[in-house]
Amino acid sequence: MCGLSTFIRTGFGNHAIPIIFVTNRPFAEGVTQPMMSTMQDEQLSLATLLQYASTFRGDSTVSTWTGDGVRTMTFREMGAESARLANALRGLGIGVGDRVGTFMWNNNEHMVAYAAVPAMGAVLHALNIRLFPEQLVFVANHAEDQVVIVDGSLVPMFAQYLPNMKTVRHVIVANGDAATLTAPDGVQVHSYAELLAAQPSTYDFPVVDERSASGMCYTSGTTGDPKGVVYSHRSNILHAMQVISPSGMGYSEADTVLAIVPLFHANGWGLVYAAMLSGANVIMPDRFLQPGPLLQLMDQLKPTFAAAVPTIWGGVLAQLQAQPQDISHLRSVVVGGAAVPPSMMRAFQDKYGVKLLHAWGMTETSPLGSVAHAPHGLEGEEAMAYRITQGRFPAFVQARIVADDGSVLPNDGVAVGELEVKGPWITASYYAPGGGEVDPDKFDDGWLRTGDVGKITPNGYLTLVDRSKDVIKSGGEWISSVDLENAIMGHPAVAEASVIGIPDEKWDERPLVAVVLAPGATAEAAELREFLTDKFAKWQLPDSWAFIDEVPKTSVGKFDKKRLRASYADGELNVVKL
Amino acid sequence: MCGLSTFIRTGFGNHAIPIIFVTNRPFAEGVTQPMMSTMQDEQLSLATLLQYASTFRGDSTVSTWTGDGVRTMTFREMGAESARLANALRGLGIGVGDRVGTFMWNNNEHMVAYAAVPAMGAVLHALNIRLFPEQLVFVANHAEDQVVIVDGSLVPMFAQYLPNMKTVRHVIVANGDAATLTAPDGVQVHSYAELLAAQPSTYDFPVVDERSASGMCYTSGTTGDPKGVVYSHRSNILHAMQVISPSGMGYSEADTVLAIVPLFHANGWGLVYAAMLSGANVIMPDRFLQPGPLLQLMDQLKPTFAAAVPTIWGGVLAQLQAQPQDISHLRSVVVGGAAVPPSMMRAFQDKYGVKLLHAWGMTETSPLGSVAHAPHGLEGEEAMAYRITQGRFPAFVQARIVADDGSVLPNDGVAVGELEVKGPWITASYYAPGGGEVDPDKFDDGWLRTGDVGKITPNGYLTLVDRSKDVIKSGGEWISSVDLENAIMGHPAVAEASVIGIPDEKWDERPLVAVVLAPGATAEAAELREFLTDKFAKWQLPDSWAFIDEVPKTSVGKFDKKRLRASYADGELNVVKL
Repeated sequence: MCGLSTFIRTGFGNHAIPIIFVTNRPFAEGVTQPMMSTMQDEQLSLATLLQYASTFRGDSTVSTWTGDGVRTMTFREMGAESARLANALRGLGIGVGDRVGTFMWNNNEHMVAYAAVPAMGAVLHALNIRLFPEQLVFVANHAEDQVVIVDGSLVPMFAQYLPNMKTVRHVIVANGDAATLTAPDGVQVHSYAELLAAQPSTYDFPVVDERSASGMCYTSGTTGDPKGVVYSHRSNILHAMQVISPSGMGYSEADTVLAIVPLFHANGWGLVYAAMLSGANVIMPDRFLQPGPLLQLMDQLKPTFAAAVPTIWGGVLAQLQAQPQDISHLRSVVVGGAAVPPSMMRAFQDKYGVKLLHAWGMTETSPLGSVAHAPHGLEGEEAMAYRITQGRFPAFVQARIVADDGSVLPNDGVAVGELEVKGPWITASYYAPGGGEVDPDKFDDGWLRTGDVGKITPNGYLTLVDRSKDVIKSGGEWISSVDLENAIMGHPAVAEASVIGIPDEKWDERPLVAVVLAPGATAEAAELREFLTDKFAKWQLPDSWAFIDEVPKTSVGKFDKKRLRASYADGELNVVKL
Repeated sequence: MCGLSTFIRTGFGNHAIPIIFVTNRPFAEGVTQPMMSTMQDEQLSLATLLQYASTFRGDSTVSTWTGDGVRTMTFREMGAESARLANALRGLGIGVGDRVGTFMWNNNEHMVAYAAVPAMGAVLHALNIRLFPEQLVFVANHAEDQVVIVDGSLVPMFAQYLPNMKTVRHVIVANGDAATLTAPDGVQVHSYAELLAAQPSTYDFPVVDERSASGMCYTSGTTGDPKGVVYSHRSNILHAMQVISPSGMGYSEADTVLAIVPLFHANGWGLVYAAMLSGANVIMPDRFLQPGPLLQLMDQLKPTFAAAVPTIWGGVLAQLQAQPQDISHLRSVVVGGAAVPPSMMRAFQDKYGVKLLHAWGMTETSPLGSVAHAPHGLEGEEAMAYRITQGRFPAFVQARIVADDGSVLPNDGVAVGELEVKGPWITASYYAPGGGEVDPDKFDDGWLRTGDVGKITPNGYLTLVDRSKDVIKSGGEWISSVDLENAIMGHPAVAEASVIGIPDEKWDERPLVAVVLAPGATAEAAELREFLTDKFAKWQLPDSWAFIDEVPKTSVGKFDKKRLRASYADGELNVVKL
């Protein structure tokens, strides 16, 4: 009977499922010995995935946009290039478990790094080039990156940070001139092209324990130091299997996926490994991320699928209105990282026949959590009611709603609380190289506390109301800043709107709306407030308004409410009181 | 450095991949310590899957055909029924690791057993009702089944075997009258309906180690005792994820899957767990497996997907020719378990607009190995050339072709040898409860030797030439019995044809064709041989022919060549020599 308590890992905990799983008593008295299966203990390995992609899926391609054309590499060539990179990295002293950073746009070379580094047993750390300088240096030091691969066009930026990176010993400059980087003592600079040209195109990629590290990403939260998440071979492969399933993105070899979301954001949304698994072709936009170049690229390469945050799609939509273009080659466009205004979803659908696919996830969840496919058989507004939610959870992202007092609420589509999730591609902790725990209160008995506030329907659809720190607590009731933003952004004169809670003597907090008007448009606060009257209760209507030139954004393009709150506190906003 | 040799499990072995993975040297000198990920060690659990299916997928249904209508159960009801069954089984003494047998048709109650038994940590052993009596008793004793759930209509058959089943203590009779079964001393008989009615509809399904047993199947080989394969929670879930992926069957909640393949054949082709994972609806045909009833069922329920062995589809095709019916509601029909004659594939496509999807697998492979989707962009005959192969391998079914001398051959679409496979849902051994090894020569350094002879193209398509024991060795050259059979079955006068090798003094072996003529058709051996002349080399053409009433079949409906060879050896065949 020894060891049984660890063999049976856990019951279902106190899930709020009324019918089946109510109590939490131990399994059975006099329980018998477990029986082991005869199945192979074959590890889920990114080395095995690379081997597959570069042979049986060897004809699939990754292409990098050059501004007026593409550089294309087959997955077969990617396999050979990965072997060259792995040989080169081994030559620089990189072994199993060592961290290799990238400081790159989305391009062929970045995809090769995503493929090769974990396949050789090392750990890919894609550095977010848009982090604030002190954060960027912090994460490179915290992760103990040994080698960093840098795009030539990013060398000037990287050169500012390099002197403060304490563990970096080698820098490899891709797509540019290595001579332009002046390195501190003890750091060697290499040309990617020259370094790889000297290497053999074969490598014995090892199959390591599937729980070992394959990659790292740091959250770019607006408070405190960035926190590291360490993905495993297992988590990346299970996540990729979910991405390609019909309830995820349903990628197949018939797809060509435009990866606008940077590979340094939240595991690159798992695009690289999902493409290798499915044989989907990949298009990398490199540094051409403005709406005009993206539309030019789409016109030429006709992707069937694209992935980016809402701000990118907002820009594309504005550009399309100025200069119409057929984008119906896109069978679907996945949008995540922030809530999508329903008005944007309708505009893409009605004017361009393109279905935005809303998804929810976090760096901590690899990132794919829920995806908003409407239930089968629904059409029109009935379908739209589901498509504007954050989506439906798959089997292996368990989800629950928890009240302030820690009690689990029912998934009845009504009860609102903090979303907690659990599953094999969800982090159990933040990376703590020196031992100890980082931010342990983000975890609740094996569940990740997401910091998102919302509700779940009986059939598994998530609707987020707000971030727990952004929700406005007015007179003991909650007002969703996100709901207000979405409604206000539906007004034709409004380009962007961000809502924060500001202190109020009577109500504790009241909403303040910071509005960016559309180019050439005019609107008064009273008019905008009037526009909201049929959508909200009277007590929820904002009484403080400010017109600003731009909503401050975080390094990943989300509204930075911390900076907006600071601007308000510093008296920098010109507030209209109604 | 301690433990590292087990941490790095294996290199790629001696794969025949020319470009990348050639040598087999150890990974690196002075290799550093592995880095563990921060991901949750959440187990892949059929209990978690059941919880998901019965809540977030609770509106999906399983329906059993009653001959003129259906009994339908939602997945929500299935969850409650599973809890009742688990409570009942616990009451009968079943705990983690104990085997629960089923002796059932495909119906709602069988699906509940598939869901509940592994979810409670016990092991489902679906007994093949068509096994020969001594084999059936052998497998029940070998697996040590404690409880067997039996369909009422199968009680008379089961009653013959029960007295010889040494470990069975309880029999539960579903869909029938328990009083009709007279049990030996020490065996209690229960009514499924009465037993479950007394149970609560909640149960604390435990999450067990994902490598522990979830189910068992025995191979029904034509030689020796049946051999047991023990599936795990992990293997069943990874397999289900592959089944629902676009390169597998691509099930989604939009599908209604007609599960003709018996749940006791090869893990029921993974249909149950794939449906629970995807939310696809399931239709169970119960005992109504003849072409007429199946077509009646299809006419009424309009499945989008169906799965069965070729002999079933041959019968359906013949029935359709006699009595045409629109079956275009089927978006795809998966066929496996034996090679599909291309003529059948064309008939379904050309006359009924239904795409047969050819797949390869074995009891030992859970069973899904390869699936014959044509590469994207190919149409007509170009696509058909791929669709008649055994299909393309997914990433986690590694495959190689091995020569008689044990050397690995290239995947060049030409080299022919024995297929070996490896992966997380492929068995590493046969079940040996008393220790020791069963048939160890079926395993080759971690790979399963499939006993199938074939070739693999560079893009991963498998073409099987024959079973290794059925291939005909004539004058030092190989003749594929399957190729001959497929060609002969393309003749309009031929209903079935089975080819075996018979001893020959000069050539060692020569092919003998056993032909079953289509009803009312006539044909001479010489005419059939003439029909083959433009398809085979002259030395491959069969010179021995026999006309028989029926090809003997195994318990799973495959051609039983052992019995055919015995008939020939016993002089029972009336052989025409050309």
